[in-house]
Amino acid sequence: MLKPSIPKGTRDFTPEEVSKRNYITNTIKEIFSLYGFQPIETPSFENSDTLMGKYGEEGDRLIFKILNSGDYLSKVDDALYSEKNSIKMTAKISEKALRYDLTVPFARYVVQHQNEITFPFKRYQIQPVWRADRPQKGRFREFYQCDADVVGSKSLWQEVEFVQLYDAVYTKLGLKGVNIKINNRKVLSGIAETIGAEDKLIDFTVALDKLDKIGEEGVKKEMREKGISEEALNKLQPLFSFSGNNDENLTSLSVMLSESETGMQGVEELQFITRNIETLGLKSASLQIDVTLARGLNYYTGAILEVAAPKEVKMGSIGGGGRYDDLTGIFGLKDMSGMGISFGLDRTYLVLEELNLFPETISENSRALFLNFGEKEALYAMKTISKLRSANLKAELYPDSAKMGKQMGYADKRNIPFTILAGEKEMEAEAFTLKNMKTGEQTMMNYSELESFLAE
Amino acid sequence: MLKPSIPKGTRDFTPEEVSKRNYITNTIKEIFSLYGFQPIETPSFENSDTLMGKYGEEGDRLIFKILNSGDYLSKVDDALYSEKNSIKMTAKISEKALRYDLTVPFARYVVQHQNEITFPFKRYQIQPVWRADRPQKGRFREFYQCDADVVGSKSLWQEVEFVQLYDAVYTKLGLKGVNIKINNRKVLSGIAETIGAEDKLIDFTVALDKLDKIGEEGVKKEMREKGISEEALNKLQPLFSFSGNNDENLTSLSVMLSESETGMQGVEELQFITRNIETLGLKSASLQIDVTLARGLNYYTGAILEVAAPKEVKMGSIGGGGRYDDLTGIFGLKDMSGMGISFGLDRTYLVLEELNLFPETISENSRALFLNFGEKEALYAMKTISKLRSANLKAELYPDSAKMGKQMGYADKRNIPFTILAGEKEMEAEAFTLKNMKTGEQTMMNYSELESFLAE
Repeated sequence: MLKPSIPKGTRDFTPEEVSKRNYITNTIKEIFSLYGFQPIETPSFENSDTLMGKYGEEGDRLIFKILNSGDYLSKVDDALYSEKNSIKMTAKISEKALRYDLTVPFARYVVQHQNEITFPFKRYQIQPVWRADRPQKGRFREFYQCDADVVGSKSLWQEVEFVQLYDAVYTKLGLKGVNIKINNRKVLSGIAETIGAEDKLIDFTVALDKLDKIGEEGVKKEMREKGISEEALNKLQPLFSFSGNNDENLTSLSVMLSESETGMQGVEELQFITRNIETLGLKSASLQIDVTLARGLNYYTGAILEVAAPKEVKMGSIGGGGRYDDLTGIFGLKDMSGMGISFGLDRTYLVLEELNLFPETISENSRALFLNFGEKEALYAMKTISKLRSANLKAELYPDSAKMGKQMGYADKRNIPFTILAGEKEMEAEAFTLKNMKTGEQTMMNYSELESFLAE
Repeated sequence: MLKPSIPKGTRDFTPEEVSKRNYITNTIKEIFSLYGFQPIETPSFENSDTLMGKYGEEGDRLIFKILNSGDYLSKVDDALYSEKNSIKMTAKISEKALRYDLTVPFARYVVQHQNEITFPFKRYQIQPVWRADRPQKGRFREFYQCDADVVGSKSLWQEVEFVQLYDAVYTKLGLKGVNIKINNRKVLSGIAETIGAEDKLIDFTVALDKLDKIGEEGVKKEMREKGISEEALNKLQPLFSFSGNNDENLTSLSVMLSESETGMQGVEELQFITRNIETLGLKSASLQIDVTLARGLNYYTGAILEVAAPKEVKMGSIGGGGRYDDLTGIFGLKDMSGMGISFGLDRTYLVLEELNLFPETISENSRALFLNFGEKEALYAMKTISKLRSANLKAELYPDSAKMGKQMGYADKRNIPFTILAGEKEMEAEAFTLKNMKTGEQTMMNYSELESFLAE
């Protein structure tokens, strides 16, 4: 018989991995909740028509479809069947599909429950999603998304809060030096107006993003190749001398974009956010305007956020988000403006691992293993274990009265720090011999000493 | 456009429902962990050959299959295609399937990771499972299972521990009067020997289970109709006078089953468990031998457990489990004995709801809403909110400077207990006016008074 395996792109998580993942998601949940977001959950699969057509052609292809139950082929008419066309067939033999992200199910939730919801609605959602992507290092077919969104208000205080929220989470995780980059879709539109072509916006941001690597002349050369005129390049000159200072950059931008109403609106929004964040202060992260930030251009309409891990770690973005004007239009509910952000669980895990930031105390392991010397001794141990558990202390009994070496070896492999021996002698004295598995040191003590010791 | 909906048998969970469900699962996790169980997680979908054939023909039918990606029909040869047979086709166009329970994936995990695992292995797992069952009241197509298992030891102390664990969880949930029923497969086998036919065991237990309703004569009549002889009925006479006392029942059983070696082994196992539980004591549950308990007869080989909700609630079992001799044989690893139990999340939820046992404090709702009177006032509020959040207190700002009535209405609908007004007057005095949304009472206070007040 072949050793069993799991589908490619999926993972088993060991106890240690689950504990570490829970440490991250519990921290995120706690901060979401502290900021007034409330949890919802949606089903793992949705009706196919809820998901299909919402992520582009590529997205449709990557959605996992669920086969209908029963004699599903009997419902396919012979004409269509004879075509043997996979795409047409899918529509007939599959009505449900696994969630591809949390945003579309959230939009569906808002529309479906609009009469029960009090707007502005602040929700968070931490659930797995599935994508039939080609698996590769760091990319999985099943992974968790951790999203918070607020819908039903256009207030820029929400942008301010999301920046604070990112700062609060990473500070709590002990990850210092995170860089929150911010841009605004309206600034990008203003730049597009200035260079005279909306369609060159992506080429422009991609080229500008290389400034550090290839220098001003390299970037200009690439822009010229993409058809951006000399006149436009002159207008864009201030971008090449962008500093790390948000105020200075905003001043340059407002000069540069003074003739674009949309652009100026974007500058004002950025001003509002950076000014208030400066007044309120961040704990460990920094907030930096980055005009090369152009993620989610097809749906973000205002602020665009992206979080970069501290510089000493080679890692892409570990979070991101933005403001959208029309979350629920696809389901017939117009004018539902909102803003949302997302935390990348897998990448955050890798960063904490690399920087050795997981606390040692997060393991769910037992503090002590009682050795088993037979029924009478085991009952003595079980009485004690029951008392310890009532005091919320993790202890367990080795289930069989196996050889002492085997039992000690078990404690060792399980990384249980203490073993407790209680035989004839200890039972008579109503005592316990505690052994430190690291040092080998043995101490005899009574119950209350034992409880205090293990509680430390 | 049609209002969007979700697939039948699935559910959206509102913030209140998520909080209540988390309250239950967090309690279960805490106790699992206290008892030395450690969490694992497995992928939502498994390779089809891991799942198919493990749950019987009916089970195979109820497993959700995932359609292969890409042009899946091109891999089906024309001969098979022309048959238009759904079952044969499924094997060709679907390689993965959604988890049907947590037991088979756990068995797969143990075999796959056998070299990394230290046995006895105590794991818990709380994840959703999916079944293409006909949806009905209380039965869903997606639902959570909460399982704990220990494999690699035959020690009866584990049975003792699982009984304690059930007691600990329901006690912590405030659910008193839970009845843990226990039986043993070997006792049932002994009874089968006594009545001379293994194949009548189910008929026998089903009939005996009706003793309360139809009385001794009714049960005997049904047994006779099922072909159980008069002589067998005489031998079984003690079962009709079973009392609520475990010791008395064990004495009757050992007289009745004295000639069956297997039966006597079952009696001894029950004796060990009930004797030690009596010595150790339970906090709020009771443990009762019930020879009509016959769940999981096709795989349980020793103890069988089932938990009944307190009598005042009409509800089937809210948990169950048992000992099995061969968890992993299906994947080629022999002699892996173990025992496991499961908690029914949905039913436990209904019971706590019916008895009004959910604490009021489990909602993740904010303690206070700061009203928004414009940018300057909002900044004053945001500074305060940031300080409160650093003190781990949940407060939020109404995002827009809308009319006061609208903002008050929002706090009301969201059930936020306090609103905080801070306008010109309060800002000058570095103070806040706090309004109790229930009583309407207003109090002016400084920051430290506010923090203490909200912390209560």
